Amino acid sequence: MTKILILGAGRSTVSLIDYLLKNSTTYSWKITVSDVDIKLAQEKVASHPNGTAISFDIKNDEKRRLIIHEHDFIISMLPAFMHGDVARDCVEFGKNMATASYVSGDMKALDNEAKRKNIILLNECGLDPGIDHASAMKLIDEIKHQGGEINSFKSYTGGLVAPESNDNPWGYKFSWNPRNVILAGQGTAQYLHEGELKFIPYNRLFTQHDVIEMDGYGKFDAYANRDSISYIDAYDLRNIKTMVRGTLRQDGYCKGWNVFVKLGLTDDSSIISHANKLTYTSLLASFLPPSNGNLRDRLKSFMGAAWDEQVEKQLDYLELFSDKKIELQEGTPAQLLQALLEEKWKLQETDKDMIVMQHQFEYTLANKTKQKLNSSLVVIGKDQNHTAMALTVGLPLAITVKNFLTKQFNLNGIQIPTKKEIYIPLLKELEEHKIIFSEKII
Amino acid sequence: MTKILILGAGRSTVSLIDYLLKNSTTYSWKITVSDVDIKLAQEKVASHPNGTAISFDIKNDEKRRLIIHEHDFIISMLPAFMHGDVARDCVEFGKNMATASYVSGDMKALDNEAKRKNIILLNECGLDPGIDHASAMKLIDEIKHQGGEINSFKSYTGGLVAPESNDNPWGYKFSWNPRNVILAGQGTAQYLHEGELKFIPYNRLFTQHDVIEMDGYGKFDAYANRDSISYIDAYDLRNIKTMVRGTLRQDGYCKGWNVFVKLGLTDDSSIISHANKLTYTSLLASFLPPSNGNLRDRLKSFMGAAWDEQVEKQLDYLELFSDKKIELQEGTPAQLLQALLEEKWKLQETDKDMIVMQHQFEYTLANKTKQKLNSSLVVIGKDQNHTAMALTVGLPLAITVKNFLTKQFNLNGIQIPTKKEIYIPLLKELEEHKIIFSEKII
Repeated sequence: MTKILILGAGRSTVSLIDYLLKNSTTYSWKITVSDVDIKLAQEKVASHPNGTAISFDIKNDEKRRLIIHEHDFIISMLPAFMHGDVARDCVEFGKNMATASYVSGDMKALDNEAKRKNIILLNECGLDPGIDHASAMKLIDEIKHQGGEINSFKSYTGGLVAPESNDNPWGYKFSWNPRNVILAGQGTAQYLHEGELKFIPYNRLFTQHDVIEMDGYGKFDAYANRDSISYIDAYDLRNIKTMVRGTLRQDGYCKGWNVFVKLGLTDDSSIISHANKLTYTSLLASFLPPSNGNLRDRLKSFMGAAWDEQVEKQLDYLELFSDKKIELQEGTPAQLLQALLEEKWKLQETDKDMIVMQHQFEYTLANKTKQKLNSSLVVIGKDQNHTAMALTVGLPLAITVKNFLTKQFNLNGIQIPTKKEIYIPLLKELEEHKIIFSEKII
Repeated sequence: MTKILILGAGRSTVSLIDYLLKNSTTYSWKITVSDVDIKLAQEKVASHPNGTAISFDIKNDEKRRLIIHEHDFIISMLPAFMHGDVARDCVEFGKNMATASYVSGDMKALDNEAKRKNIILLNECGLDPGIDHASAMKLIDEIKHQGGEINSFKSYTGGLVAPESNDNPWGYKFSWNPRNVILAGQGTAQYLHEGELKFIPYNRLFTQHDVIEMDGYGKFDAYANRDSISYIDAYDLRNIKTMVRGTLRQDGYCKGWNVFVKLGLTDDSSIISHANKLTYTSLLASFLPPSNGNLRDRLKSFMGAAWDEQVEKQLDYLELFSDKKIELQEGTPAQLLQALLEEKWKLQETDKDMIVMQHQFEYTLANKTKQKLNSSLVVIGKDQNHTAMALTVGLPLAITVKNFLTKQFNLNGIQIPTKKEIYIPLLKELEEHKIIFSEKII
């Protein structure tokens, strides 16, 4: 029996655990699912004979090391900042590991040691990063194989709400960790535009967004996502002129979110004490520079050209002018905002979420013809629990782990799904699960 | 013999170590000075018979614990984020401890245990925080003793350059840790203004500054410093309407610095790889939103009303339009900016720095008369090494440690110099060292 340990049983793990349990008898897997909240782990395991639910404190070094030591393959679905400790234990004990998160500095530092011990540290095996890498690399390799040279690559992904459940002026509900949505984009976004390096600081990120269109789904805002530059090497695109990875939101979202950024409501570093003595309206007033008039007019004039009717609807939807009480006793501005949005942007029981991904290629063929190619993916979730997000994050991770364990590829050290031996069987099996890209030459 | 350990021997420790060594024979002290750079420790000890210079890696838990265990009183002059480990060891081993830094969350968590073990965790015993607390509390207690009620308290401090050494358009040179200057203000500033809570996010901090005047020294920019609200309790000023702590810079500094904030050059969270392939001019261009024209005009139009001739002079002084090469191989925007400023804002050998502090009180006397009182301090340094900064940070810390060790006060747990038994002997001795406030009723 191969013993698989899954750390974390949050909302993104439904499809991952489901897939592994379903395949556990065929491949002789014992699966342990662990979460601080034992109920979450038990729910996911659902009394499957090959599954065990456990609960322990991941920060307890001794306990964590003991449990990791007892298993053969560790999948960490913990918040990204917790992967470091797990990865160090895995390398020390010679255990293989996988995550759906970006390769962190902590992880990078373990690459040599992992290679020396011949273990794999699989990362970026979810949706974005994950499916985007696999599907982009397939097209990149195909275009290159035809003798084409890629001049421009833009790749956009969004975890959104399906049109039939889209009933608020933000076009957004939480289908994954709300905290990540609130803090999204902090730092400096880096990309390449027509041969020039472009950096966007957080304070302007939601004002310098692009707009893209998806057939049948309308327009989306696209803001630059982290460091796109580092993927030039990862994708082997050394002569490319434009390279952008971006995050999608419904049309109009960025303009609304920019109000929070400009006000300062997304800061997560300073704690506001006695917050429960405030209302969201007074919080907003405290963040506005001194000026006269009623709050709504002050905010309007503060935002200037960055204000419109849609923005006003978005803020009204959140009851920001209605003296709604803050419930948290204290918290950073980001935490106070999150508490409000978790109430207002809750995915309801029958709501369906939606994943949208689009790759846009521009390339020159061997015969000098210039060509454009769009490759698009839309996945609609089933309900509040069986989300498109859980499916597209969990399934590629589960499939890649299965392919590794069944020796369909043999790699060690840090890996992301950009290599043929990883992405070909992965994309093939994803198609069986109706995760299918449609390509269109323009 | 009492064994004192000083961790860190950087530029702010000259006066601290000097004072302790000078008094070491009188009070039977053995003083160990430690720094990663043994030379720094040796320089400061200067072969004093009661001093020993050592060097060890503070992150080596075993070594650190061993050394702390061998001493009676630990003074941490390390970067603030490193105090936590030291404090935990001190509490575990029952050792007294002092720092010149703000009370951190890590420190706060140790308060009960420190009280239980009857040890003191002295914090905020430098200049600001430090002398500001002591001198403000003296006046607050005096005003209250007269039956006055304080309505408004504003306290401003700056570590600047003396007028005779002020020869650049920023009016600034580094007299302490440059990194702290680059990152100053990140987070949300919080203060009370006429009964209303005011929050300023980092992205607007340098646009919402005040201007104050000091007799004989002209105008200064004053931007809000961290969380002023928490000092309402610490200073026992519960009915106050306005409470602000601020940082001083020369007139015009904030407008120039705001360019860096708006561009995104002070972000410290995202690394720019291959930075040494860039110039500071191309870095600046990469941060500008797309627009036409030459770089200087593009920046001018990007800044709009926040641009003026003085700002242009400031940027030219830094050679930002001169294709100056970036030397660092990689770094965050903040690190790249710091490397440039360390060159341009270096305190030269004969340069003198200057500390400026001003408290502004508004209060109502028992007879209902309203009164204003300003209390001001100016300290000019001797040279590049014997700075006013090192004197005003190190001396109050050294004196307070001496007063504790000589039993002039007896307190335990977390303490800052707001209590009479700490601030009265402290201010008295500071006067002997020509650190004297001048008071003026307006």
